[in-house]
Amino acid sequence: MAGAAQFITFEGIDGSGKSTQARRLAEHLRAQGRDVVLTREPGGSPGAEEIRRLVLEGDPDRWSAETEILLFTAARRDHLEKTINPALAAGRVVICDRFADSTRVYQGITRGDLRRVVDKLHVLMIRREPDLTFILDMPPGTGLARARGRNGTEERFEDFGEAMQARMRAGFLDLAQEFDSRCRVIDADRAADAIAAEIADLAEAALA
Amino acid sequence: MAGAAQFITFEGIDGSGKSTQARRLAEHLRAQGRDVVLTREPGGSPGAEEIRRLVLEGDPDRWSAETEILLFTAARRDHLEKTINPALAAGRVVICDRFADSTRVYQGITRGDLRRVVDKLHVLMIRREPDLTFILDMPPGTGLARARGRNGTEERFEDFGEAMQARMRAGFLDLAQEFDSRCRVIDADRAADAIAAEIADLAEAALA
Repeated sequence: MAGAAQFITFEGIDGSGKSTQARRLAEHLRAQGRDVVLTREPGGSPGAEEIRRLVLEGDPDRWSAETEILLFTAARRDHLEKTINPALAAGRVVICDRFADSTRVYQGITRGDLRRVVDKLHVLMIRREPDLTFILDMPPGTGLARARGRNGTEERFEDFGEAMQARMRAGFLDLAQEFDSRCRVIDADRAADAIAAEIADLAEAALA
Repeated sequence: MAGAAQFITFEGIDGSGKSTQARRLAEHLRAQGRDVVLTREPGGSPGAEEIRRLVLEGDPDRWSAETEILLFTAARRDHLEKTINPALAAGRVVICDRFADSTRVYQGITRGDLRRVVDKLHVLMIRREPDLTFILDMPPGTGLARARGRNGTEERFEDFGEAMQARMRAGFLDLAQEFDSRCRVIDADRAADAIAAEIADLAEAALA
């Protein structure tokens, strides 16, 4: 990175607090006078939101894992072109709730043989990696209870239960090692204020 | 191919008579007692038709060439999984109006630097090639007049005019050389009956 970490992502299992912490970091940096774009995946641009609806609505089994990866990659490409890249080029900070790491982990877990395909598609069509990634780590049972409690929209993966959440947690921790120069593992099984304060300190140091 | 050409595609510029000739070949082979699936791209399965609508409806400039290729590849993967591969596995003949060759030619013409991306995506996510491809060849002015006359649905490429049609014709002829073992160039600037008879003879010989 050219001195400053402008592209910041939040990753972790469902219920780990990604959306809350992404929003809080955006508010914190804006209060410092920084120009921040807060976005999310899948979605984040009008076209990508349409693709998101195509994948997440309707029968969850209607797309194969391969077709779903292609659709998510199409959505990510649109999100990059229309939202992320223009904002970074304008010198803004981009905070994104989920990015390519989620695809790596979810596909690596549900269809391990597809991780290679995910990586090749990323190199071919996306390439961009975040400058800084916060991996919100917590026991899978806690995350699952929170995710179920909020009656959220990402029910597909939550439905897989605690064993799947445990594998996803392990997948994110593996990823943090694989991309250790940009990943920071955050203990997310604490009060939201304490988590937000730690993330704010780390982000400020990286943005300085 | 294992002795028989079960997967047959029709390619060529707009207005060259692909849909008509694909339908006529299907009728001819069915009259001989063969079990034929007639399909088309983009589309050809419920999911792929949804993706087709996403790409072809709305503002034609809302997707970049890269995103469009990813969406077309997702549609093709779904079409293969849900329609083409099951039919071939059941011993049926599949006749498809456009397939991967259209993507190769259109992207190669409109954004030449993307042909390599198209090829890599094909190898990674599709792989399947037709056993036999009819390339319906005609002067671009003739094709364009026909396409415009029928008030068709594929207006995006027709709008590019005769110069573009001429480049597309050349692109399909180049492709016929690149994949000469499966491609047959058909003079489509003749009466439909004569064209249908030639195609029926060639298909029967390949299916025998």
